[in-house]
Amino acid sequence: MKTVAELLTAARAGHTAAIARLLSIVENDEPGATEVIRATYPQTGRALKVGFTGPPGAGKSTLVSSLTAAYRKTVPRVAVVAVDPSSPYTGGAILGDRIRMREQYLDTGVFIRSMSNRGQSGGLSRATRRVVSVLDAMGFDVILVETVGVGQQEIDVVRVVDTVCLLTIPGAGDDIQAIKAGIIEIADLLVVNKADRPGADEAVKDLMQMLNLGTPRNDWRTPVIKTSSNTGTGIEDLMGAVQKHREWANQGGEAQRRNADAMRTEIQALMRERVLRELERRMDPQQLEDVVSQVVSKRLDPYGAVDELLGPEAKG
Amino acid sequence: MKTVAELLTAARAGHTAAIARLLSIVENDEPGATEVIRATYPQTGRALKVGFTGPPGAGKSTLVSSLTAAYRKTVPRVAVVAVDPSSPYTGGAILGDRIRMREQYLDTGVFIRSMSNRGQSGGLSRATRRVVSVLDAMGFDVILVETVGVGQQEIDVVRVVDTVCLLTIPGAGDDIQAIKAGIIEIADLLVVNKADRPGADEAVKDLMQMLNLGTPRNDWRTPVIKTSSNTGTGIEDLMGAVQKHREWANQGGEAQRRNADAMRTEIQALMRERVLRELERRMDPQQLEDVVSQVVSKRLDPYGAVDELLGPEAKG
Repeated sequence: MKTVAELLTAARAGHTAAIARLLSIVENDEPGATEVIRATYPQTGRALKVGFTGPPGAGKSTLVSSLTAAYRKTVPRVAVVAVDPSSPYTGGAILGDRIRMREQYLDTGVFIRSMSNRGQSGGLSRATRRVVSVLDAMGFDVILVETVGVGQQEIDVVRVVDTVCLLTIPGAGDDIQAIKAGIIEIADLLVVNKADRPGADEAVKDLMQMLNLGTPRNDWRTPVIKTSSNTGTGIEDLMGAVQKHREWANQGGEAQRRNADAMRTEIQALMRERVLRELERRMDPQQLEDVVSQVVSKRLDPYGAVDELLGPEAKG
Repeated sequence: MKTVAELLTAARAGHTAAIARLLSIVENDEPGATEVIRATYPQTGRALKVGFTGPPGAGKSTLVSSLTAAYRKTVPRVAVVAVDPSSPYTGGAILGDRIRMREQYLDTGVFIRSMSNRGQSGGLSRATRRVVSVLDAMGFDVILVETVGVGQQEIDVVRVVDTVCLLTIPGAGDDIQAIKAGIIEIADLLVVNKADRPGADEAVKDLMQMLNLGTPRNDWRTPVIKTSSNTGTGIEDLMGAVQKHREWANQGGEAQRRNADAMRTEIQALMRERVLRELERRMDPQQLEDVVSQVVSKRLDPYGAVDELLGPEAKG
């Protein structure tokens, strides 16, 4: 059993098994998670982090596979994090899709991680953020995060990145209607994937219209990009748009603002965990039992019991 | 808008709308929930509380309807709480089933409440416990709690009662296998419903066998009862078994023990809510923003930020 320090040394030297182990530690909040995060946090902030979400069948996994290959022509190390919020036990659907990435499996410059919703303490989006943060610190140049679906949980997961791509496909008019305005608005880039199919231009037009209906959050003009993994169309355009968004976000303060929001959320979550641990520590089990039996015998009600244990609540 | 005190007076006089309003307040933890719970808690503990769970199709709603009619011949007021943990928005399936209770809808001695999983603070089982507790204090003689399914959440919900009935039907051999031993063990009574169908005796035998395989929790011998809402068979037997279980639980200390467990859980939950409120109150927003910007600029990591805000953590 390696120590966290040994794992960090091996992972920084590029050993895949050590990286995988560190990710499990932070993902599941195992002992040592704090040490891993404190040790890696100062090295974060260098990777290009891009997220992909959209309804099932939009071709996310295939597009991510094409992008992985394309990015690998420009940088030495790419990581893919595939998150399946709907699957409580294994990465079912997404792991199946990963078979399409078998070429990338053979590329030692590509690291692939599947995550599913196993009730991680603090939720899947926090776990994803930690995994992405450790990968960033381990020197991956590009980190692609992919999630299935367009619900609130998927959105929360994918927001751990700098640039969020929302995928749809031609002829998915009803699907697009189903994508709520709020979800269109969190996307930094809109992608009409499988654009070799008929109806791609109409889909672009529909999305443009929806964008014009919404209130812009800022001065970023969300582009709509047509891509096809079959023909390779648009992959370069998409990479260009990601780069453009990154530059805009870094210059205008959007990147800083998103990072501050994320860190505020994380710090508040850590504070809540900490005060709950302190509560547990200062709780005298015998005193608790005394109060419980007073409640059972109706000499106290449950709120009175809390006053008894913690003192009356401060007001204001 | 009535005050909580006014609502309590009206509800104690039997006004249905006031009772329904009080239940909504505690179910959704609205302002006034604490006041309602503190005011009603001393009057709880009188009602007979029985829970029903089992796989979909086991005929829970129809059996509960028959039992409601039967109990109404012996007591003036019966409440039914139908909980659907799988439905996040409306009581869908269960509300549909309620149509079968239309006779009881016309009986002013019967109060029916549907609850669904709307993300109540503290979870559905706490919300159910509070609803049952208020109904108890409002003087209902019998409270029947019904929930769909046999998962952990359904079990947690149904455990707010004194006597848990697990329903199955003849010919559901595979279903019975799927009911994990742990779930058989939480049942105080096992019911083979729709016993006018072929295979009822085999189902009883199967359940007996499963009971004999498990380790008894205590000296209660879980009975297996055949019922049929079609023929009326077994309704009296079931009521008799419920009564017998209640007497056993009151005499042997089991009722007291369950109540203490429930109150311990509730007090701990209230303490957690309280320390989190206190954390929120003592948090200076400006200090938080200062620390967030130090984390963004990597002068602190998120754990260091928490130390900065709350002081170093006590050990031990």
